[in-house]
Amino acid sequence: MLTDLAIAPGDVIRAAARISEFVNRTPVLTSRRLNELLGTELFFKCENMQRIGAFKARGAHNAVLALSPEKAARGVLTHSSGNHAAALALAARSRSIDAIIVMPENAPAAKVASVRRLGGEIHFCEPTIDAREATAAALMEERGATLVPPYNDPMVMAGQGTAAMELLEEIPGIDAILAPVGGGGLMAGTATIARYLMPDIQIIATEPEQANDAYLSWAAGALVDADPPNTIADGLRTTLGDKNLPILRAHLDRFVTVSESAIVDAMRLVWEVLKIVIEPSSAVPVAAILEKRVDLANARTGIILTGGNVDLDHLPWQSR
Amino acid sequence: MLTDLAIAPGDVIRAAARISEFVNRTPVLTSRRLNELLGTELFFKCENMQRIGAFKARGAHNAVLALSPEKAARGVLTHSSGNHAAALALAARSRSIDAIIVMPENAPAAKVASVRRLGGEIHFCEPTIDAREATAAALMEERGATLVPPYNDPMVMAGQGTAAMELLEEIPGIDAILAPVGGGGLMAGTATIARYLMPDIQIIATEPEQANDAYLSWAAGALVDADPPNTIADGLRTTLGDKNLPILRAHLDRFVTVSESAIVDAMRLVWEVLKIVIEPSSAVPVAAILEKRVDLANARTGIILTGGNVDLDHLPWQSR
Repeated sequence: MLTDLAIAPGDVIRAAARISEFVNRTPVLTSRRLNELLGTELFFKCENMQRIGAFKARGAHNAVLALSPEKAARGVLTHSSGNHAAALALAARSRSIDAIIVMPENAPAAKVASVRRLGGEIHFCEPTIDAREATAAALMEERGATLVPPYNDPMVMAGQGTAAMELLEEIPGIDAILAPVGGGGLMAGTATIARYLMPDIQIIATEPEQANDAYLSWAAGALVDADPPNTIADGLRTTLGDKNLPILRAHLDRFVTVSESAIVDAMRLVWEVLKIVIEPSSAVPVAAILEKRVDLANARTGIILTGGNVDLDHLPWQSR
Repeated sequence: MLTDLAIAPGDVIRAAARISEFVNRTPVLTSRRLNELLGTELFFKCENMQRIGAFKARGAHNAVLALSPEKAARGVLTHSSGNHAAALALAARSRSIDAIIVMPENAPAAKVASVRRLGGEIHFCEPTIDAREATAAALMEERGATLVPPYNDPMVMAGQGTAAMELLEEIPGIDAILAPVGGGGLMAGTATIARYLMPDIQIIATEPEQANDAYLSWAAGALVDADPPNTIADGLRTTLGDKNLPILRAHLDRFVTVSESAIVDAMRLVWEVLKIVIEPSSAVPVAAILEKRVDLANARTGIILTGGNVDLDHLPWQSR
């Protein structure tokens, strides 16, 4: 039943009002040449131009801004090391509270620097899941900080849905919307608001073939163990959250997976034609169209480009 | 006297009306982080997202669309091999006429492919200026085609000015505007319309130190011979046009040059923070701010980002 789902459309709508002054209303880009090449009319929601370079700023702000003053005063905490860590540091700074970020001691220097620049308080731990969780638990106990998980959390999911909400409000008559799935927070928020605003819209989830746990779980109707992820789309190596799965089951029309080579080709195509920097995860829905895994002929198609944080010294097409 | 200048503000205003249905109204991007880093409030006019990936689509369309039906029927011609060649091929296609492009036989394969994709009729010649001009002259004689020069032409200059016009109309209260100078067509169009729309605006030209012929000519008040250009900003290796110089003399407040390393640093900074792909020429005005060659503290500063056509296999910071 829809009433059992972790979030409802109203949660996304309230999130949009809550976060609007702290996040960017990102542009929607189009390209006549890409439309010709791909045979569908594409509208790209550019979350690569979001603050901290990824949609994660939305969910983190929603979770932080919704805390009671008492809870907020004790700070927030996460043990993600990717874009969510930077997003949480920024959101905490927006509210002038502490962000405690637990990171493995082998985290990339760029990610450490990014969290530090945003004022995050970094605690290093050994690079195992157990060490992360133990370090986080000890700090939560000691400081009374609130855990903000990267995706398996209703406030985070609702915040991520605001990107699709802006897209659907700005561009009339969207027939289909595509986004990538990692932990499922973005896809859950997107599906929830898209089904509400445009009941007949096609909602299509996309994932790398080589990190297809969410696809398998969606098809099975229960979280399943999949092979370890082995994809260039580093943002999508996480496993699907149990709060996200029922929402994907309730709202998705289709779920397609894509090859690694199509991800790289799609990423390069977007750089060359749209002239924007996107990370491999962002290219996954574009790859689904490029590989003809979906039929969107004559449709008006929205795509959430999730982020643009890449190492400009090492681009994927240069290592092939 | 202003009345001796090759173009007047009305020419830019008429160009805007003439070309509007054929070119993109490109977005204006901003970044809180870049504003903090550079100490001025920046508004980036993204001509890298223009059709063919550069502002050149504007001038070429203005020149082609203004031709009489009789002249247009005999086609247009150029012997530039850069973005202007692709722009002219596109503009000719917009009017369903022939574009004759004279190119040296050693032109990069990507530029040849781009002109061909747009339906341009390519005539190869030996890679010397004499051979280009002789080949072009013979074709003009034979076909009766109209020459559309890349920058030393009033219709082209007026068309290029429409980018600044859109920026100044969209963003209120711009205090300063910066653009790069190669042949001077963009800078002349920009200066003409900016001085008219915002009489008190600071108009600042920028050029690589290692391709500073326009700066030297502007300072001397006459076209001067400079050292051969040796800059990564390949779009700015051309020499200033004699029709552009008087306009730059009439309207510029300042003319600053920048180092090669600042161009590469500025280019990378824009890729990393704005998440857009720009070519080295586009980075030159940003480099002027990064190197503190201009004082724009507390100003609202417009920058024309001229284009985004780069070889994604070889990025300048990777070869250092």
